[in-house]
Amino acid sequence: MDSVKRIAIIGSTGSIGRQTIEIIRSFPGRFQIIALAAGRKSALLEEQVSEFKPHYVYFTGKQQDIGTCRYLPVEKMVTLPEIDIVVMAPSGTAGLKPTYLAAQAGKSIALANKESLVIAGDIITEQIKHSGGRILPVDSEHSAIWQCLRGESKHPARIILTASGGPFRNYTFEQLERVTPAQALKHPSWLMGPKVTIDSATLLNKGFEVIEAHHLFNIGYNDISVLIHPLSLIHSLVEFRDGSVKAQLSSPDMRMPIQYALSYPARWANMSLPRIDWDSLNNLPLEPPDTKSFPCLELAVSAGRNGASYPAVLCGAGEGCVELFLNGNIRFTRIPDIIKQVLDEHKPATGYDIETIAEIAQQAKQNALEIGRKRG
Amino acid sequence: MDSVKRIAIIGSTGSIGRQTIEIIRSFPGRFQIIALAAGRKSALLEEQVSEFKPHYVYFTGKQQDIGTCRYLPVEKMVTLPEIDIVVMAPSGTAGLKPTYLAAQAGKSIALANKESLVIAGDIITEQIKHSGGRILPVDSEHSAIWQCLRGESKHPARIILTASGGPFRNYTFEQLERVTPAQALKHPSWLMGPKVTIDSATLLNKGFEVIEAHHLFNIGYNDISVLIHPLSLIHSLVEFRDGSVKAQLSSPDMRMPIQYALSYPARWANMSLPRIDWDSLNNLPLEPPDTKSFPCLELAVSAGRNGASYPAVLCGAGEGCVELFLNGNIRFTRIPDIIKQVLDEHKPATGYDIETIAEIAQQAKQNALEIGRKRG
Repeated sequence: MDSVKRIAIIGSTGSIGRQTIEIIRSFPGRFQIIALAAGRKSALLEEQVSEFKPHYVYFTGKQQDIGTCRYLPVEKMVTLPEIDIVVMAPSGTAGLKPTYLAAQAGKSIALANKESLVIAGDIITEQIKHSGGRILPVDSEHSAIWQCLRGESKHPARIILTASGGPFRNYTFEQLERVTPAQALKHPSWLMGPKVTIDSATLLNKGFEVIEAHHLFNIGYNDISVLIHPLSLIHSLVEFRDGSVKAQLSSPDMRMPIQYALSYPARWANMSLPRIDWDSLNNLPLEPPDTKSFPCLELAVSAGRNGASYPAVLCGAGEGCVELFLNGNIRFTRIPDIIKQVLDEHKPATGYDIETIAEIAQQAKQNALEIGRKRG
Repeated sequence: MDSVKRIAIIGSTGSIGRQTIEIIRSFPGRFQIIALAAGRKSALLEEQVSEFKPHYVYFTGKQQDIGTCRYLPVEKMVTLPEIDIVVMAPSGTAGLKPTYLAAQAGKSIALANKESLVIAGDIITEQIKHSGGRILPVDSEHSAIWQCLRGESKHPARIILTASGGPFRNYTFEQLERVTPAQALKHPSWLMGPKVTIDSATLLNKGFEVIEAHHLFNIGYNDISVLIHPLSLIHSLVEFRDGSVKAQLSSPDMRMPIQYALSYPARWANMSLPRIDWDSLNNLPLEPPDTKSFPCLELAVSAGRNGASYPAVLCGAGEGCVELFLNGNIRFTRIPDIIKQVLDEHKPATGYDIETIAEIAQQAKQNALEIGRKRG
């Protein structure tokens, strides 16, 4: 029997946070929630506090305790000595600082916030090296790779990330031009937060994931590929030096990678997680991505290759573009243009610390917002 | 650097034997061939002896040395103390005795001969338990499962064996009735010996593999499934208790699982092994097998479930049917009928030793041959 795992959930009311809580509910006695953090003090957050009685809570806005649960800034929360695992699930760049601090504090970080690694992958992995912390990937693709590498050499020949292709696969440019936010928010296979859903529709998200994979698995960009897989059943693949390939599959349900990260290295039986229905499965197609219709993928990979502060810029600009698109400021097809422009105009920085790189990302977001609002 | 692996190849001139030798040629200095055994003294065997200068050689017929290479019965060969790995690749039931002896002698057995486990799985695994030997699966499906289980708990929720469906997938009964040996020998994706090719066309081979999997991985039949996968790229899958599934993929080339068995636990870089061409891949379909058109699958599974001497009978009867069909004695569609009849007429034996069970299989083959020849 495993000992009780003491958890902090950063982003507890978001999509990943709520699904994390579902998993914790499925295993009574195996977890203790020590701290919860959310974007704002919502009814849901109060319910979570009431149900799990954490010692600490955080939300933006006025600092106040909730009943006997003490208010604590998220930066302090992620370094609490009594916490084993920090579930890092805030949306977008908000995850950067807490991830960094948790890494520095040597925590096990169940990482759903890919942006922190995209922005500051080198720094965070360096911190982890010194602190003895570790990252437990929660992104379905990276969880898949992590699972495929289990028991294997840490130096595979190639990592192949799969992508659903998003809701607009096979659209013409003319069709893409008419895409609405409502359409883009309807992801064909994954139920996710709005940001990552739009990023998925542009394939930017997949580019983020290439970078994330680069950092998580210490593998060169030449050895990371992407394939479109609309069924979202094969979550990624790893090719070894003998030509053998392993793939990880499961129903598209984030609770599976969340549970794996929390139970690791064990696998816990959980019949409430959906199974792949093999008998009604018609096909498992895999085809290369359409980089012409979806330039974000190559933009992101190229930012990853360029390294230095480029990935931070990519990430900030992307966040800005999503905001613009969701607000009706720009068309879907302008997203890659704006990201490209922000990247092109960037003067790369090196030797930065965590503060500087966060600022660079923030500035890139502002730049993207300005460009987008200018042309309407 | 690994130390030199000292090898005996039983069945060196057959399909698996020749591909084993290709792998050995790819890694000069890593292997020493100590002994070669083949069905008869062919020119190929003499070439192999001349190239690799083994200490011992075996073939049926007149006992004689080949040059300075000493003749040695195969039963002695597989227990030689100077041998690390026995590659067990004779066709059909000829593999039973050598596999048993190698298991008893505590050897690492690179097992391509599934019949030995189908017939005497309980006995052989018992021998291995006592002797400290082990089986390194060479069948592509079992190699796939073995690879998927690497680093994982030894108790997965389910094993899913894939099957190409053979050359006659989607045939009607009328079409199946007109199938010729030449057609049946043209397997759509695998280049194999004639026996296993025909067994594949009837799906009997897949039933053998279910049984083999049961023994190799100590997993109940309820937890072994089969899916049709005509591309023969996904070689098998393992489902874990958390709903996660791992699959192993590679181009359909037996050299991959052979190399894995020989290099295990390492994976050796070998660019002469074909890679999956992801960019030209159109689909990876998976669908349930057509058990109505291909009853051998269920016959075999049922024999496995019944246990005792049934699997031995299944195996012997199957071997007889292949002979009948290849000789033009019976139609393709009679193969399952005859196997079923032999199984139905069998009075199960328990508590048998290796000799008895070999005899039971042999008798089942004779029974099948008699039934088949009777009706023409």
